[in-house]
Amino acid sequence: MIARYTHEAMTALWSDQSRYRAWFDVELAACRAMEEEDVVPAGTADVVAPVRDRIDAHRIDTIEATTRHDVIAFLTHIEELAGPSARWLHLGLTSSDILDTSMALLVTHACNLILGEAEEFALVLRRRADELRDVAMVGRTHGIHAEPTSCGVTFALWYAELQRNMVRMRRARDAMSVGKLAGAVGTYANVSPQVEARALAALGLRPETVATQVVQRDRYAELVFAVAQMASGIEKMAVTIRGWQRTEVGEAHEPFGRGQKGSSAMPHKKNPILSENLCGLARVTRGYVTTAIENNALWHERDISHSSAERMMIPDVTSVLHFMLRRAKSLADGLVIHRDRMAQNLDLTGGLIYSQSVLLELVRRGLPRQKAYEAVQRCALSDGSDVTFRQRLSEDPLVSAHLSGEELERLFDVGYHLRHVGRIIDRAIGAAESRS
Amino acid sequence: MIARYTHEAMTALWSDQSRYRAWFDVELAACRAMEEEDVVPAGTADVVAPVRDRIDAHRIDTIEATTRHDVIAFLTHIEELAGPSARWLHLGLTSSDILDTSMALLVTHACNLILGEAEEFALVLRRRADELRDVAMVGRTHGIHAEPTSCGVTFALWYAELQRNMVRMRRARDAMSVGKLAGAVGTYANVSPQVEARALAALGLRPETVATQVVQRDRYAELVFAVAQMASGIEKMAVTIRGWQRTEVGEAHEPFGRGQKGSSAMPHKKNPILSENLCGLARVTRGYVTTAIENNALWHERDISHSSAERMMIPDVTSVLHFMLRRAKSLADGLVIHRDRMAQNLDLTGGLIYSQSVLLELVRRGLPRQKAYEAVQRCALSDGSDVTFRQRLSEDPLVSAHLSGEELERLFDVGYHLRHVGRIIDRAIGAAESRS
Amino acid sequence: MIARYTHEAMTALWSDQSRYRAWFDVELAACRAMEEEDVVPAGTADVVAPVRDRIDAHRIDTIEATTRHDVIAFLTHIEELAGPSARWLHLGLTSSDILDTSMALLVTHACNLILGEAEEFALVLRRRADELRDVAMVGRTHGIHAEPTSCGVTFALWYAELQRNMVRMRRARDAMSVGKLAGAVGTYANVSPQVEARALAALGLRPETVATQVVQRDRYAELVFAVAQMASGIEKMAVTIRGWQRTEVGEAHEPFGRGQKGSSAMPHKKNPILSENLCGLARVTRGYVTTAIENNALWHERDISHSSAERMMIPDVTSVLHFMLRRAKSLADGLVIHRDRMAQNLDLTGGLIYSQSVLLELVRRGLPRQKAYEAVQRCALSDGSDVTFRQRLSEDPLVSAHLSGEELERLFDVGYHLRHVGRIIDRAIGAAESRS
Amino acid sequence: MIARYTHEAMTALWSDQSRYRAWFDVELAACRAMEEEDVVPAGTADVVAPVRDRIDAHRIDTIEATTRHDVIAFLTHIEELAGPSARWLHLGLTSSDILDTSMALLVTHACNLILGEAEEFALVLRRRADELRDVAMVGRTHGIHAEPTSCGVTFALWYAELQRNMVRMRRARDAMSVGKLAGAVGTYANVSPQVEARALAALGLRPETVATQVVQRDRYAELVFAVAQMASGIEKMAVTIRGWQRTEVGEAHEPFGRGQKGSSAMPHKKNPILSENLCGLARVTRGYVTTAIENNALWHERDISHSSAERMMIPDVTSVLHFMLRRAKSLADGLVIHRDRMAQNLDLTGGLIYSQSVLLELVRRGLPRQKAYEAVQRCALSDGSDVTFRQRLSEDPLVSAHLSGEELERLFDVGYHLRHVGRIIDRAIGAAESRS
Repeated sequence: MIARYTHEAMTALWSDQSRYRAWFDVELAACRAMEEEDVVPAGTADVVAPVRDRIDAHRIDTIEATTRHDVIAFLTHIEELAGPSARWLHLGLTSSDILDTSMALLVTHACNLILGEAEEFALVLRRRADELRDVAMVGRTHGIHAEPTSCGVTFALWYAELQRNMVRMRRARDAMSVGKLAGAVGTYANVSPQVEARALAALGLRPETVATQVVQRDRYAELVFAVAQMASGIEKMAVTIRGWQRTEVGEAHEPFGRGQKGSSAMPHKKNPILSENLCGLARVTRGYVTTAIENNALWHERDISHSSAERMMIPDVTSVLHFMLRRAKSLADGLVIHRDRMAQNLDLTGGLIYSQSVLLELVRRGLPRQKAYEAVQRCALSDGSDVTFRQRLSEDPLVSAHLSGEELERLFDVGYHLRHVGRIIDRAIGAAESRS
Repeated sequence: MIARYTHEAMTALWSDQSRYRAWFDVELAACRAMEEEDVVPAGTADVVAPVRDRIDAHRIDTIEATTRHDVIAFLTHIEELAGPSARWLHLGLTSSDILDTSMALLVTHACNLILGEAEEFALVLRRRADELRDVAMVGRTHGIHAEPTSCGVTFALWYAELQRNMVRMRRARDAMSVGKLAGAVGTYANVSPQVEARALAALGLRPETVATQVVQRDRYAELVFAVAQMASGIEKMAVTIRGWQRTEVGEAHEPFGRGQKGSSAMPHKKNPILSENLCGLARVTRGYVTTAIENNALWHERDISHSSAERMMIPDVTSVLHFMLRRAKSLADGLVIHRDRMAQNLDLTGGLIYSQSVLLELVRRGLPRQKAYEAVQRCALSDGSDVTFRQRLSEDPLVSAHLSGEELERLFDVGYHLRHVGRIIDRAIGAAESRS
Repeated sequence: MIARYTHEAMTALWSDQSRYRAWFDVELAACRAMEEEDVVPAGTADVVAPVRDRIDAHRIDTIEATTRHDVIAFLTHIEELAGPSARWLHLGLTSSDILDTSMALLVTHACNLILGEAEEFALVLRRRADELRDVAMVGRTHGIHAEPTSCGVTFALWYAELQRNMVRMRRARDAMSVGKLAGAVGTYANVSPQVEARALAALGLRPETVATQVVQRDRYAELVFAVAQMASGIEKMAVTIRGWQRTEVGEAHEPFGRGQKGSSAMPHKKNPILSENLCGLARVTRGYVTTAIENNALWHERDISHSSAERMMIPDVTSVLHFMLRRAKSLADGLVIHRDRMAQNLDLTGGLIYSQSVLLELVRRGLPRQKAYEAVQRCALSDGSDVTFRQRLSEDPLVSAHLSGEELERLFDVGYHLRHVGRIIDRAIGAAESRS
Repeated sequence: MIARYTHEAMTALWSDQSRYRAWFDVELAACRAMEEEDVVPAGTADVVAPVRDRIDAHRIDTIEATTRHDVIAFLTHIEELAGPSARWLHLGLTSSDILDTSMALLVTHACNLILGEAEEFALVLRRRADELRDVAMVGRTHGIHAEPTSCGVTFALWYAELQRNMVRMRRARDAMSVGKLAGAVGTYANVSPQVEARALAALGLRPETVATQVVQRDRYAELVFAVAQMASGIEKMAVTIRGWQRTEVGEAHEPFGRGQKGSSAMPHKKNPILSENLCGLARVTRGYVTTAIENNALWHERDISHSSAERMMIPDVTSVLHFMLRRAKSLADGLVIHRDRMAQNLDLTGGLIYSQSVLLELVRRGLPRQKAYEAVQRCALSDGSDVTFRQRLSEDPLVSAHLSGEELERLFDVGYHLRHVGRIIDRAIGAAESRS
């Protein structure tokens, strides 16, 4: 988490204050559950509850300097604030009961922030897919002009992938919505499954099916992967925009603010820096995926090696993705589309992008596929002169024997190529809607 | 894929022969669909179909040496075998229509092989969890004795995680069960959505929501991650077994065959080599996860950079996981459990593992938590003499003021600690059963 | 290792036959050293030596099916072939003495194959850098035209990076040129440092400074990283070529063979498939880097988890890089440069690429930097009309107050911009030469 | 960088204040070099220099909110502070000239901090290797008792690996000690190689051999890898200590402070939390390695995608490693070694750890190796009874036919096994000393 790439909502969520409050909420929920199960004296939780607003992160740090154990320092501080009733807190629990359960609360919150931004980003993509559905542009494979497509289809593609990634994120949130109040080795030695069930239900969580001292870390790996996947979907959009904004392509450019400067050296520059920035951040998220998987196979009933990695990783990946979504949304929203350049570029190859249409028509007229292919390739690849592909076709003996000039003409029709595009876009939008 | 770590089922699946047949199946399904849509002459597919058994992988390689394009080489070969009717194949399609759709068939098959082995592995884990439910052993956190647990709980833990990973694998299979017959840039320029719908339905696949030239690679990343997660779950079991088999622990050992030799130098060695082997293979699978995510953000309507990586990655990860599952199953099945050592080790610390019970009882009797903690820690940590923890407790003025000798006695009871274990195991098994 | 991406030299190197011969060479070198140290009877090695050509990999496999230990199976087979004298082999050694020392031999060989190809690739890059030194082209940052550069500089860049990567590869080879004949836990319990020193010297290796049962795996990680770095340098070239070959850019294209076909659907396509292929393979190599680092921290005097990963990883990464270098060399060699398009593209922005020159001249004439920047940016960014940047400058009151038309003219000079290019190229070539 | 894992030296180094001062130092060095080359008026640098202490990071942030370009904001601020002379700064330079050159300064400093800590850590390891050279302990392979070793050897192993990693770190520092003042596309279009040479020499840096807009990122990847390697060496030590501290092993424990608490639930716990913490942090560093390699292959003369990743990665990995080294040093220094447990554990298997000695002696007496192996394995593996390995050997007909009771006795001698240990340790220490 660096300030540059962290929105204040995430800064607040991952602050010490916020984390200690989440710990407190878990302790209190456990205490109430124990009251209901007659394990601690009735009324204890009500006595302790008001302390929440007086938790002092600095004081806890001071105590931890001696205990070298964060949860014990926290409990000592709560006892300072709440007096003797506080001794009923944490009864039969182990630190990980608090840490993992509160982490579930915090991560669930982080996922909700992420999904909220993703929803807004999705709305922008959908609107633009719709708005740009009839804007023809050249499709490129291998960076080479292939056949026509529509600009709206590309936005629909990003939208459809974002929907898949939102499904993955919801699943990851669900996998993380698991707490554990089962004691030192997960056997409920000094706490009961009933207490756990009550407390977790109050917190909106489910119990871990089988826990060791901790909630199992395959759940965390799923979260980090879901983040990296969603980041990779944003990267896909960013790479495409960077391609569109290249000087020679010029089909789109990123919003460029008043007073913005593209280069300290070259005043003419307008660079796709938002997109480039998103690509770099996506790399950071995927670097963490192997870290997250490595954290899973702990020794026996747990070792604590995952902990240091998670302290950096979980705030990092959630806040970076959250930042990316906000940036991606405004980028998609403000992206300037140059329809004229799209139209010009469509014609750039003098019709080569319709070579398949000619090939197929020749096959339909009875030519063997490989023979037809060679004929069309022959007309397409001859370099050096100004003769266009269409001219060469009309002069080719084999081609002209099967296709008249008029018949050829009809094959060079962008409208025909795009006749199914509306259907694709509607399918993408519809698919998502039926899911929500 | 190296022979050592590949079962013959996967060798066959990823052979050239198998891949070319899958290509053929896709071309034929597309051809039949086009017949039904009156795009190609009725009867074409029936003429071409018998060629399937005569496909010659070597001949295709020879042709590819010239064309440098594998699908064109394949089609040329089919035309050699089937004659003029073959020119109706591939009509309006692009290579990726065949490659990606056939990859969906192959990967689905690979996932089914994996899930089949996973089911069997799960049955073994469940049986052993049940069989070992009453075998008490010490739980270890940080490698240090913590509190008692049961051996069966650990098998139930592996079982529960395997169930989660099977859900993930089924989702990945579902994400991969997507084909695409939509032409060069995914716009159905020379093929119709109806043809795609018919052909894919016949193949048991769904159409990609929005395709470029290719099916989107977030689907592949999900597959590779699901593999790495399942491998990581196996690694978790392997790490635990390695811990159990350590000389000083001696609580279990891997099956050791007649004639097997543990070391070329040291005839006494019986090493947990199966488990160690599984740990190494898990590392290979997770190395591929970043590769798979990197493959997602291709340029525009696709670049082909993903292809070389996938040629290695997809057979590698699926076959390695398949091998791991078979090995893990026989390992879990044959693992020799030393109940006597488990019992001995439970007593190794002279009752220290019950320190929390004492702590909690003191709290219940009215001591502040931190004061009780210090008293118990004082009795627990004194080193050097032969005096046991329990003796020291009974002689401690503060402790003995609150707990009589008899009361102390009752706190050192393994049965009490494990009273909820059966419930945990049943919950794990039940949860899985309700899911199937 | 898949056949498609493996040259026969690497296939041979990593064959079972080759590996068993390397084992044999190590055993024999150890035996000779022991003879010299009077540990085994004189003449033993000469009796056993001829067996080398009769080693039968299949027979070893058969024996291993029982022993489940490869080195013991190997020794049993050698005893079958060589008779009683063979019992003197492996005296005081452990399997890893043989495996790690022979791996050093094989990897050293693999590094030499790699470095041999790298040398040839470097020669091609140097030749082309020299040949293209005066070919001006536009430099692009963020994909946007920036300032002029020369095509030769880019080849020199790849050359300079390749030199750095060759240094890294030689260091990695050196780090791997370490054997170990120190017994079960590396203490020379039943073999002497003198025997190790003699045998390793005969094999061209150094002893591990401190070994456990194995040579330390930080050495292997350095190798895999050196591979990934060199692969990444090739990827850099490939990404640039893919950019140059884009339809709108058209400044270069990959060699395209007679009979080659670019697309099964679109006969006009000439795609940068070699470059794309190289990008994908680079991803595979870097996926293995984390695997290699994970292999380092083994348990105590070694666990064998690294072994399964290395069986796949080491042949994979070395053979893939070797393949990449051969492909990269022929790609760089055959790359067709379109000087006319480079010239056209230089003019594409109507002089915007000289905006910095104007800015600096205004500063030199006394304008504050930020004021000058705004003036030039104002002239550069105005969209929509046909008026060029140079015209707008000459009409701008602030600019024209400081620069006459003639003075402006002189600032738009590509020759001036490239006056230092020869020096850069010579520096790159010279730097490398002084190193060899 | 999170406060918990960052020492104040790194906090200061990577602060905004520190980074802006480094930028300033580069601008000033360039300015002085230009003065010497008569490109800017003499005395400019002296006028601007005093501004350094008045740089206000917050003011720069405010300006950047408009310009969206950090270097331009910085220059604007300097102009505010220094007046008209400041317009001579940055003449002919591009932002990356400043950013990359100052990054070289900062990273060099970070490497020096790291190497300083590494030196101290090395001293501790060397001292302990020496101090513990005669402490015999059992060596373990696969977690199973193998043969005796000495505790000092293990410290020497860590020392030797640290020395290798310090060499790698120095090389990485050297690779990073490269600046670049070559303008927008690295061609010195508006600045001269002479200016660059002068300025970089003054800053203690070398020029990039061939630059694009930026210094090439293979250098950064080498740095991140060197960090991950050194972290992995620390992880190796940590994993071993965790093994030694396991309850059943008990051969060492981490320093445990007064007032420290091991568990919130279990007062008896003393856990190897420092070691576990180091393992987790090592995972974080290696996750970044693929990110760093991905940053290398930028588009053409550069894209800025690397930048966002580096903003997080470079401070993270350097500060985490620095923290790890400090922690590792105090851990190695304070590690409590239990010689009595080491001695007890050596005897735990009743002499099995000498099985190889018996095997080899039988071979020397004329038994074929495989026959001898089976005899010794037979005596070693018989389970169930209380008869020890040595007894079984003396009663075995084959063994007793070749070895008398006295002869057997001599083979069970730890001193004999460790006769070369001093030499190994001296070699490790000497090797390192000759290097410094």
